[in-house]
Amino acid sequence: MAKISLKKAAERLLEKDNILILCHRYPDGDTIGSAFALCLALREAGKKVNVMCGDIIPAKYSYIYGTLTPQDMREKFIVAVDVASAEMLGLLEKDYGARVDLCIDHHGSNTGYAKEYFVDSKAAAAGEIIFRLIPMLGVEVTQPMATALYTAICTDTGCFRHSNVTPNTLRTAAKLMETGIDAYSVNRRMFETKTRERLAIERSAIEAMSYRKGGRIAVMPVTAKMLEDAGVSEGDIEGLSSMPRQIEGVQIGIMLREVKDGIKISVRSVPGIDASAICARLGGGGHPAAAGCFAKGASMEEAVDRIVEIAETALGE
Amino acid sequence: MAKISLKKAAERLLEKDNILILCHRYPDGDTIGSAFALCLALREAGKKVNVMCGDIIPAKYSYIYGTLTPQDMREKFIVAVDVASAEMLGLLEKDYGARVDLCIDHHGSNTGYAKEYFVDSKAAAAGEIIFRLIPMLGVEVTQPMATALYTAICTDTGCFRHSNVTPNTLRTAAKLMETGIDAYSVNRRMFETKTRERLAIERSAIEAMSYRKGGRIAVMPVTAKMLEDAGVSEGDIEGLSSMPRQIEGVQIGIMLREVKDGIKISVRSVPGIDASAICARLGGGGHPAAAGCFAKGASMEEAVDRIVEIAETALGE
Repeated sequence: MAKISLKKAAERLLEKDNILILCHRYPDGDTIGSAFALCLALREAGKKVNVMCGDIIPAKYSYIYGTLTPQDMREKFIVAVDVASAEMLGLLEKDYGARVDLCIDHHGSNTGYAKEYFVDSKAAAAGEIIFRLIPMLGVEVTQPMATALYTAICTDTGCFRHSNVTPNTLRTAAKLMETGIDAYSVNRRMFETKTRERLAIERSAIEAMSYRKGGRIAVMPVTAKMLEDAGVSEGDIEGLSSMPRQIEGVQIGIMLREVKDGIKISVRSVPGIDASAICARLGGGGHPAAAGCFAKGASMEEAVDRIVEIAETALGE
Repeated sequence: MAKISLKKAAERLLEKDNILILCHRYPDGDTIGSAFALCLALREAGKKVNVMCGDIIPAKYSYIYGTLTPQDMREKFIVAVDVASAEMLGLLEKDYGARVDLCIDHHGSNTGYAKEYFVDSKAAAAGEIIFRLIPMLGVEVTQPMATALYTAICTDTGCFRHSNVTPNTLRTAAKLMETGIDAYSVNRRMFETKTRERLAIERSAIEAMSYRKGGRIAVMPVTAKMLEDAGVSEGDIEGLSSMPRQIEGVQIGIMLREVKDGIKISVRSVPGIDASAICARLGGGGHPAAAGCFAKGASMEEAVDRIVEIAETALGE
């Protein structure tokens, strides 16, 4: 529950050993890239370190962790990276939710659930923070770390497109590229390669899109049946949530996705409208322009009604 | 026909007055952003300068040139920016094709048609070169120049996504952002805003897509009727040409677009396959990963046959 500096966080990590790094549920490039880059750096510093995630990590990230083998250890120090709340640990919440020693994050909505935490909400990605942290561990950023961190930063910024990009984001990416990594192959894998299944789900999602408030809100429901018909896997869906807001005139774009125990809701907004505040009304959080929440046990219709009502209120009358 | 250094190019510009800057046909963000940034800088240096393009500049770029008024002058010194060949001047070729005094470009395929030229094929965009040139003119990069140059760089790199991005590209963008411009609003306008018409043409283009060589070549014909049915304008089409190559497994992505006097062909390729060489076979050119050519007077079927044969040969048997 205590805010600490990044330097202090580095000191903590150097003091400890047998470190377990946790990712957030529905893992994305930032939590995965940041966690594995930190893992590699701490191993370089002579520590025993493992990474764990409550969900299966999509195979498209295998180039990040492919050659890494788990280390035999009994974890003594628990670190969460890019995890805004204990709930975001997903299946790991039960065992670790109340036991996180250190959290390194960039979500302004971080609940402060960890014993000590460093949050920089100006960082576009947790990966930017880890890039600053690694030299404080006395370690040089190697190519595998750079590839992981580049992935973290490019995925959390939509490849340097979103409103969270700062000059520091671009400079960090430049430095990572200068280690000699193949940044383009990461971009291509993350952004340029669409499976035919992805194209199919995009088409059906566009067809299912509806508009409210004269086109200022776009709602895109993605049902389990649509996903099944398109034959998509988890990795095919990432970034789909940014589609509704991309339509001209849309100020709040909402994607609702049917999962096993409810509806996962993603909200994207234009500057001036706080997506994080909208999602907080349903117990979620995130960033001003991109946030999420979960309607547990809700049907698609119920979830649409709830989130649309909140979004309409956010736009004002 | 003489290669000169960028410093020499700056000296030339400072010596001259009554300067006319030419853009290439089918103008994109790079030729427009670079030309207007250079225009603003030269006016700042006390020169009379205008910009001209053979085609109408799409309205979505109006934030770049919106407040600029033409200056009364008789042009004495002709500068082409981002124009790889005299032919790329389009309707301006007849009057100016043999009269270009200075060309500043980043196309490795530049034909050297200008009296003097500076070409840096490592620059991801002509805008990167203009950013280096402006201080040599004794001028500081203002926000309007920075907005124009940021547009140039982000559009020519697919928002920092393509293989042409270097650390210098990212650092240049960082410096441009630091002038205080609203880079996100440029990204949003160029990449995040899709009109419903654009969505319609994307859907019909995906439907028209066919594959050759076991999916290694994707061919996307866009007929005049498809464009008319979707109700799209010129600005809605930009970037459409990168769609075919985005399909998983595709190494050469080809878009063919029916225009008044023939078929405009855009080729995108993965590293190791030279799109520029493929297009050169039909009298075109460009970059290794992105090039174009024009099948004058050809029908869609003829153009498809011609370019597919060349692409198949490029892949080898």
